[in-house]
Amino acid sequence: MASQQKNPVLSPYRCFDPEPSQREVALQLYSQVRDLPLICPHGHVDPRLLADPEARFGSPAELFVIPDHYILRMLYSQGVPMESLGVPTKDGTAVETDHRKIWQRFADHFYLFRGTPTGLWVQDELQSIFGIHQKLGQENAGAIYDRLVEQLSLPEYSPRALFRRFNIEVLCTTDAATDPLNLHRTIQQDGFPVRPTFRPDAVVNLDTEGWTWNIQRLSDASGIEVVDERTFLEALRQRRQHFKTLGATATDHAAPTAHTGRLGENERGSIFNRALRGQASAEDARRFTGHMLIEFAHMSAEDGLVMQLHIGSERNHNPQVFQRFGRDMGADLPRATEWTRNLRPLLDEVGNDSRLSVVLFTLDESTYSRELAPLAGHYPVLRLGPPWWFFDSVKGMECYLDQVVETAGIHNLAGFNDDTRAFASIPVRHDVWRRVSCNWLAAQVVRGLIDFEDAREMAAQLAYGLAKTTYRFTGGEA
Amino acid sequence: MASQQKNPVLSPYRCFDPEPSQREVALQLYSQVRDLPLICPHGHVDPRLLADPEARFGSPAELFVIPDHYILRMLYSQGVPMESLGVPTKDGTAVETDHRKIWQRFADHFYLFRGTPTGLWVQDELQSIFGIHQKLGQENAGAIYDRLVEQLSLPEYSPRALFRRFNIEVLCTTDAATDPLNLHRTIQQDGFPVRPTFRPDAVVNLDTEGWTWNIQRLSDASGIEVVDERTFLEALRQRRQHFKTLGATATDHAAPTAHTGRLGENERGSIFNRALRGQASAEDARRFTGHMLIEFAHMSAEDGLVMQLHIGSERNHNPQVFQRFGRDMGADLPRATEWTRNLRPLLDEVGNDSRLSVVLFTLDESTYSRELAPLAGHYPVLRLGPPWWFFDSVKGMECYLDQVVETAGIHNLAGFNDDTRAFASIPVRHDVWRRVSCNWLAAQVVRGLIDFEDAREMAAQLAYGLAKTTYRFTGGEA
Amino acid sequence: MASQQKNPVLSPYRCFDPEPSQREVALQLYSQVRDLPLICPHGHVDPRLLADPEARFGSPAELFVIPDHYILRMLYSQGVPMESLGVPTKDGTAVETDHRKIWQRFADHFYLFRGTPTGLWVQDELQSIFGIHQKLGQENAGAIYDRLVEQLSLPEYSPRALFRRFNIEVLCTTDAATDPLNLHRTIQQDGFPVRPTFRPDAVVNLDTEGWTWNIQRLSDASGIEVVDERTFLEALRQRRQHFKTLGATATDHAAPTAHTGRLGENERGSIFNRALRGQASAEDARRFTGHMLIEFAHMSAEDGLVMQLHIGSERNHNPQVFQRFGRDMGADLPRATEWTRNLRPLLDEVGNDSRLSVVLFTLDESTYSRELAPLAGHYPVLRLGPPWWFFDSVKGMECYLDQVVETAGIHNLAGFNDDTRAFASIPVRHDVWRRVSCNWLAAQVVRGLIDFEDAREMAAQLAYGLAKTTYRFTGGEA
Repeated sequence: MASQQKNPVLSPYRCFDPEPSQREVALQLYSQVRDLPLICPHGHVDPRLLADPEARFGSPAELFVIPDHYILRMLYSQGVPMESLGVPTKDGTAVETDHRKIWQRFADHFYLFRGTPTGLWVQDELQSIFGIHQKLGQENAGAIYDRLVEQLSLPEYSPRALFRRFNIEVLCTTDAATDPLNLHRTIQQDGFPVRPTFRPDAVVNLDTEGWTWNIQRLSDASGIEVVDERTFLEALRQRRQHFKTLGATATDHAAPTAHTGRLGENERGSIFNRALRGQASAEDARRFTGHMLIEFAHMSAEDGLVMQLHIGSERNHNPQVFQRFGRDMGADLPRATEWTRNLRPLLDEVGNDSRLSVVLFTLDESTYSRELAPLAGHYPVLRLGPPWWFFDSVKGMECYLDQVVETAGIHNLAGFNDDTRAFASIPVRHDVWRRVSCNWLAAQVVRGLIDFEDAREMAAQLAYGLAKTTYRFTGGEA
Repeated sequence: MASQQKNPVLSPYRCFDPEPSQREVALQLYSQVRDLPLICPHGHVDPRLLADPEARFGSPAELFVIPDHYILRMLYSQGVPMESLGVPTKDGTAVETDHRKIWQRFADHFYLFRGTPTGLWVQDELQSIFGIHQKLGQENAGAIYDRLVEQLSLPEYSPRALFRRFNIEVLCTTDAATDPLNLHRTIQQDGFPVRPTFRPDAVVNLDTEGWTWNIQRLSDASGIEVVDERTFLEALRQRRQHFKTLGATATDHAAPTAHTGRLGENERGSIFNRALRGQASAEDARRFTGHMLIEFAHMSAEDGLVMQLHIGSERNHNPQVFQRFGRDMGADLPRATEWTRNLRPLLDEVGNDSRLSVVLFTLDESTYSRELAPLAGHYPVLRLGPPWWFFDSVKGMECYLDQVVETAGIHNLAGFNDDTRAFASIPVRHDVWRRVSCNWLAAQVVRGLIDFEDAREMAAQLAYGLAKTTYRFTGGEA
Repeated sequence: MASQQKNPVLSPYRCFDPEPSQREVALQLYSQVRDLPLICPHGHVDPRLLADPEARFGSPAELFVIPDHYILRMLYSQGVPMESLGVPTKDGTAVETDHRKIWQRFADHFYLFRGTPTGLWVQDELQSIFGIHQKLGQENAGAIYDRLVEQLSLPEYSPRALFRRFNIEVLCTTDAATDPLNLHRTIQQDGFPVRPTFRPDAVVNLDTEGWTWNIQRLSDASGIEVVDERTFLEALRQRRQHFKTLGATATDHAAPTAHTGRLGENERGSIFNRALRGQASAEDARRFTGHMLIEFAHMSAEDGLVMQLHIGSERNHNPQVFQRFGRDMGADLPRATEWTRNLRPLLDEVGNDSRLSVVLFTLDESTYSRELAPLAGHYPVLRLGPPWWFFDSVKGMECYLDQVVETAGIHNLAGFNDDTRAFASIPVRHDVWRRVSCNWLAAQVVRGLIDFEDAREMAAQLAYGLAKTTYRFTGGEA
């Protein structure tokens, strides 16, 4: 421990400004929120990790490299073939199977992540979870690999053990509308506060590959034969109820644009029928999604599920990568997003409904100050989600706080979520948010814009309170 | 006074960076501009406040809460009904009439404004105008209310007294083209430097509710019977002359987009006639506004009135709020704005006219560095207005200075304006601008990018000089 | 020398943060890269300056004022006629010919450049190249002019002497596809590492004035009679080979938008034939450029020339200025740019080609974090060019680093280039970049986000290595 303090790779002041008065206030604020339980209202942890007490994370390559699209995209951008990183191909072409080699390749290129959140996360995980206080690099990759392999085989590094150690108060997964949620039942029965989130994109986006098959599964799961738009809505309502019985408090919806617009009964019926016959056009799909967002907003007003909108990702931008490796390989790319006019039809119907809460996520930072903060600072139903994806980073968070708080305050924000499938990175991501937000508040304090007492309350809200209230987690979960 | 200094709610260093060398330079610069007279070339103060020597501000709720759309929107976004804040309904439904309760409700929710300019303004107004050195909150709301009531009844807290105390060198109101400006005459006769601003939106935007009635009033006011587009332009010219006789130096024009485009004589005549018959379409209105902006630019070149363009607000975004409460309730929302191509038709005609000055205001910060600074740094007629509306804030000002000065310098800026209907907030808003711009210049000094002597001159220009020259206030006014 | 150090106009710490710990780290990093040779992979230096050993820069007005569009635009925006600055008119109208007066006029208005990169560059050039340690102003303009005239006549201030003194390792010019490059041959024979860059815009953009004449010159230069689209491509390939024999490693392409899209064989043939007959429409031109960008990407994959895209400038926005003075007078204006969807057709074809490298430049800072960093952080062929044009500035660089590194790292960046026709400003511009990037890295170090060792390597990459590898300069040049 003493030697660790002598050679820390990670500074205890990391993310804080160097100016002594600000750093001091930041540290005071941070010390009060550092150990608060983690509220994880949106993420992509695989429930299988937690359903089986014997589950393990696998090799260091499986834990850190192969499933992480941040890592894959950076290495790929610098000419490292994804095959050489063990990413399975759709056609079964052979890929690297030696995980020690994959890890070495990652370490050889770890310099690429200097100045990126991935660099920070990985280094912090190695240190704070595995006690490895060295900078990962070409030379020590093998030794670190061996140590990680050893640790990962131990019960105290099992997903369930880390879940306890991470002090997670609640964790929400993201699940298809057709998911029976049996794993969630098991996990909950074993005392873990894990909740599902209703994400119906695969049955709502008419151009999803396999949509018709998804609809058949929806019929099966709901027990309602989906034969037209009316039964489709019924089946969705049934699934929402099922999700609620398993503790869901939220839904999630992704779309490339924020377009919303009500369709007439005939029109939406016709589109749905065309889709059932496999004849829906891209424009049909776009308009149907725009209509369904309004339908879902009404359902949320009725059943109380918080509605999340993740807008602006152009999925599978690289057709070669998609054809060879499939989804989530780092080839989803942001595009400019318009909110003010696109959301208007939805808000016209439900923008003032006190029962409803809609959380907005953007990949277009220029919309923070121009559209999102003004919208959330007026409409009772709107909250802003935290910086998303590429913006889950020190500068991303500072940009967000700089651009939204003056107009929307902090009480129209949804707190933090880690939005990750990389389970081991959860506490690190929350820690970065807590550090950055405390440092940001400290700047406000030393500039005389808020006082320390206010900053303390704001820090606790940003670290913990806002996520809990926004997502309607009430009472104890574990 | 001693105890006030011991427990100041507001730091004398507020808005300054904590780094000691920068803070010191900021303070030196600020101490030289702090007490300069206020130039207020654009705002929405009600002239009735100043026309009658006996006028008073009313209750603390009437002064601070009920007319302030920044406050209304934040409280509304957090579920506080506007009825409970005493905002009058259009249909006369009863609203809260107990102003003490309204004030208490505001104080109960004052924590929502932490980190917002409203929070800063209100706290500063309470302290610097009313000598209240406590943080407003649930407990002390009643006592503060009582104290304010007492003070507001005193002659030294009358609008005219505060006008003198604020050291306002010139204040411009914003007035309909049809306004007879009788109040301005009275105010001026009593020695107050208050000037009108010609804002013809209500007769130019064909889709304004009550447009035909407005045209009738225009005929009445101008003495020119408006029967077609030619007489319409004549009447507008007459009104501009009238405004000039009352000291106007500027016009103001608001539009959702920056579209400009000349219409042929037949076309604009036809559109105007359709409008007179109540048959103008939305597209007619859009194109007519785009044409009229060019007409007004020519008129300004001729009569010397500075032309202000406020672009990008989607008015009355929330139909429920509009139907129940009307305009200016915090439900106007910004949208993305394009300048480079939209302004081109106007600039093609008058962009190099040495007689003309056009001041541009945006709600889209992404256009500062991309379009506005490059435009203003080339076209002789263009000046950039200060950060507007949601951006009249510490971060908003810093973002503006960061993004425009490197390309446009400071001499293509229009200085500051408070743009407020909240009279008591005028000195506070100028003070924030003076503090932030001095701190920004201090950063330039301590980073060796400009020297102190230059910074001193720039500070005075930003605080005072640029507004005075841009708006062509020459000679003494009071 | 001693007195110079007592009264430095330029601080040795300029561009660095004032906070002592960050400043110290910045200085350490900077001291290691300050004297690295200059890699200048993109710029507009006139090869005639270097082809003749006897060439001189002319008067101070010719060196600093008359050809500098940054300076012309600022002075013009403040009402200084370009005629009074000696800018030649197209119709031969008389302009100021007394260069001493032009210099005085510039000095009289030098206060306009406070806080701008031009202000910094000019002051630094006067000091570091000419040893003039005074702030340029109205009073000392004449004396400084005389001193400059004297120095500029000396051999040690000739372009070739300064080239050696500046420690330029390689300098690329930008040249028309039709250029015979004879000057480059001469320059290289005399031992100067100057390379051409292939910029075919004048024969590719069908709406270029004089396009047909340019095509004729292309036939002449290539020896391939251009009679249709096939022979056009052949001629372009021939020219690329010629450029390569003279050391070119890159091409450059400018377009108002990033639109790319393949045209069918018949369609592009028809468009080209219409153009030959002088009948191409604006839409023809737009689509042909979008197609040709894809063709050029394929050619680059084949012949290894790095492809540069400069997107988003609306050229000659001010028709009066264009008609009177021609191009490059500061009247080119940026517009919003969309990359994610526009580049997709090009990337679909060659985005994963390991032979290809495409460097993107934008005038729309909002695309850094939203589109460019995510694109470059995934596609192997993409690199981001440094902050361009209006953004070649302290804040412009900080904004760029803040917004791209977290997503793309630094190894997807193309390093720095000065992009200037103002030869004397080359070392100053590199110096600003080196200072700002070292200060930026220092902030990362003192905030504990990277360690000093990493920062040192990153500083060297940003200052030198990335430009060298991106542009494929291998081995010694001089």
